Amino acid sequence: MEVVQVLHMNGGMGETSYANNSLVQQKVIAMTKPITEEAITSLYCSTFPTSLAIADLGCSSGPNTFLAVSEVIKAVHKVSRKLGRQSPEYQVLLNDLPGNDFNTIFRSIQSFRHKLTSELGVGSGPCFFTGVPGSFYGRLFASNTLHFVHSSYSLMWLSQVPDGLEDNKGNIYIASTSPFSVLKAYLEQFQRDFSFFLKCRSEELVTGGRMVLTLLGRKSEDPSSKEGCYIWELMARALSYMVSEGLIEEEKLNTFNIPQYTPCPSEVKAEIAKEGSFIIDRLEVSEVNWNSYDTGFTTSNALNDGGYSVAKCMRAVAEPLLSSHFGEDIIDEVFRRYREIVADCMSKEKTEFINVTVSVTKTSA
Amino acid sequence: MEVVQVLHMNGGMGETSYANNSLVQQKVIAMTKPITEEAITSLYCSTFPTSLAIADLGCSSGPNTFLAVSEVIKAVHKVSRKLGRQSPEYQVLLNDLPGNDFNTIFRSIQSFRHKLTSELGVGSGPCFFTGVPGSFYGRLFASNTLHFVHSSYSLMWLSQVPDGLEDNKGNIYIASTSPFSVLKAYLEQFQRDFSFFLKCRSEELVTGGRMVLTLLGRKSEDPSSKEGCYIWELMARALSYMVSEGLIEEEKLNTFNIPQYTPCPSEVKAEIAKEGSFIIDRLEVSEVNWNSYDTGFTTSNALNDGGYSVAKCMRAVAEPLLSSHFGEDIIDEVFRRYREIVADCMSKEKTEFINVTVSVTKTSA
Repeated sequence: MEVVQVLHMNGGMGETSYANNSLVQQKVIAMTKPITEEAITSLYCSTFPTSLAIADLGCSSGPNTFLAVSEVIKAVHKVSRKLGRQSPEYQVLLNDLPGNDFNTIFRSIQSFRHKLTSELGVGSGPCFFTGVPGSFYGRLFASNTLHFVHSSYSLMWLSQVPDGLEDNKGNIYIASTSPFSVLKAYLEQFQRDFSFFLKCRSEELVTGGRMVLTLLGRKSEDPSSKEGCYIWELMARALSYMVSEGLIEEEKLNTFNIPQYTPCPSEVKAEIAKEGSFIIDRLEVSEVNWNSYDTGFTTSNALNDGGYSVAKCMRAVAEPLLSSHFGEDIIDEVFRRYREIVADCMSKEKTEFINVTVSVTKTSA
Repeated sequence: MEVVQVLHMNGGMGETSYANNSLVQQKVIAMTKPITEEAITSLYCSTFPTSLAIADLGCSSGPNTFLAVSEVIKAVHKVSRKLGRQSPEYQVLLNDLPGNDFNTIFRSIQSFRHKLTSELGVGSGPCFFTGVPGSFYGRLFASNTLHFVHSSYSLMWLSQVPDGLEDNKGNIYIASTSPFSVLKAYLEQFQRDFSFFLKCRSEELVTGGRMVLTLLGRKSEDPSSKEGCYIWELMARALSYMVSEGLIEEEKLNTFNIPQYTPCPSEVKAEIAKEGSFIIDRLEVSEVNWNSYDTGFTTSNALNDGGYSVAKCMRAVAEPLLSSHFGEDIIDEVFRRYREIVADCMSKEKTEFINVTVSVTKTSA
C-alpha cells in the first residue's frame, strides 16, 4: 500500500464524510488552543514580521480545516491591536496528502474569509490562502519561508506501513498479542519519520519559527498498552469475526496493518533532542473521550450514543485505507459490527484518546 | 451570475472535460514559448534568486496546467547550467477560480515531478507546488513575493458580466448587431478589470519581476469585428434556433451574456500605460486555427473534423456558464447544433482565434 496515495480522510460533505464526523478532532484543537496562542503570540512579539506564513499540516477538509488557522490569526490580530501595530499580511498554507478533498476546502474559503473579517473587524491584514498537496515526510515549502506550523492529529500517521510485520497475524496495529519485533518495527518507523519531519521543517522555518504539534499518543511507556491500541484492536475484532464467517479471507486480514504510531511523551522528546534543530517550550498530555458529545461531566450521552459517533469518526478516517485493501463491498458491514463492539466496550470501561502536544522553537542553525 | 462562483473549465478526465479538450490552448502555449523563455531567462540572469516564485494564473486542470511552468523551469535550468550556477528552488503557484478541479491537478503532481526530474537530469533544484484558489481580479499572493507570472487564455474572462447589456437581445456577446452601448459596456469592464489586475500583480511582484500574458483577442480596432466575436455568435445562433422551437425561453436568451472581452493590442497597451507599474518588452499578435488538428499546411483535417473538436473545446470552456443559466438539460442539444453550425462555417471560410501576447517588466515603484 502506498500511504501517500491511499491515506486521506473521507471527502465531500456527505453522511460518511470527515467534514461531518470530526468532532473529536475539533475538540482536541479547542483543548490545545492555549498552547497554540502562547506560541504564536510569543513568535509574533519577538519578530513582528510584516507577512506571516502559517502552515497547517494535515489540514483535512471540513470545519476543522480553518479552525487552528483562525485561532492563530485572531491571536496575532489581538496582540497587534493591543500594541498599536498594524496587522501583518497572513499567508495561510493548507497542507494534506494529494488524496485530500482540496476542492471542498477551496470552495469554502470565501465564506470563511467573510466570517473571519466580520469577527476581527476593521484593521485586520489580508489573508492569502494556498493549498499545498504532499507528504509532510518530505520538503513542502521553500527554505526559510515559514513562521508558524500547526498540526493536529496528523503526525501519528506514518509514511508507510513498517516493514517486518509478518508476525502480526490477526492484528491490524500493535496489540497486546503482538510480538516484540512488531513493536520494534513500529517504533523505528516512527523515529525515522518524525526525525525526517523535523529536519524538513527546520529547513523551511525561519530561525525562531514555532511549531505546535498534537499527536494521538499514549501516556504509558509500553507501546502495546491499551490507551494507544484499543481503538484498532476493536476494529481487528470486527474484521476477525468476518474472517471466521468467511466474509473476508484470512490472508487479507493477516497482511493488513495500519500505518500509524501513537507515541508516548518521552519518545517524542527523544527524537526532538536527537534531531537537534528545535528546543521544546512545552510538552503536554491530555485526554479526550472517544465520544465527542461527552462533556466530561457525565457519561450519559456517551452511553446513549451507543458507539455511533466513534464508529462514524473512525470510518471517516480509515475507510480509504480499508477499502483499498479489502475492497469497498465489506465497508458497511465492518463498521456496523465495529459500532456494536465499540458500544459494548464503552458501556463497560473508560474510553479515551490520549493527546501528546509539543510546542517547539527552531534554534539558529 | 457570480462569475467567481460559476466560471470554471469542465473538471475531471472524462469525455467532455477540459483536460481532454484543450488542444487549442496547448498549441497557443507552445506558440508563445519563445516569448516566455526570453522573459524568464532575462529575469533570472538579472537577479539570480535562490528561490524563484512562478505563478500560472488561470491554470485550469489537465495537461496544459503544467505546460507553461515546465517550460519556465526548463529555461532556468538550462541557463543556470550554462553559467555554472546552482539551480534555484522553484515555488510553483497554480491559480484558478475556486470551481476549478484542483483535486485532479494535485493528484497528478507526482507524475509531473517524475517526468520533469527525468527530463532535467541531475542538479535541478527542488520544486514546491501550491494551489491558489481565487480570482486574479484581486490580491492572491503576499506582497513582493512573485518573480514570474504566466497566464494564457484567461485574462479575456471578465470579473463579471458588464452592466448595461439590456439592449443586447438575441446576442450572447458583442455581435455585429450589438448597439454601441453594448460595445462600450464591454470595453469599460475590460479596462476596469485589466487595470486592477495590473495593480494587484504589481504589489505582488518583486521589482524587475516579469509577466507574459496571452489573451484571446482581435487584430481589428473594432470590437464587433468577426475575429473576436464569431465563435460566440455561432453559439447564439444555436441558442436562437432552440428559442424559435420553444426549447428555450426567449427571455432566458435575452438575459444571457458571456463575461469575456477579446481586446486588440492597442487596448492592452493603453491600460498598461495608464496603470503605470509595468513597461512593455514585447507585444505580439498570432493566430491559431479553430481546429487544433490543423497543421497550418492544409485545411483537410479541419474539414474532416466537422467542427467536432472546436465544439467540444467550447463545451469544456463554456458548459458551466451555460448550464448555470439555462439548466443542464439543454446542454447536449445546444452543443449538437453548435457543432453543425461551426462545421458548416469552417467549410466556407477561414476560422481563427487571434492571440494577443504581452511581455512586461515591473518597474521600481
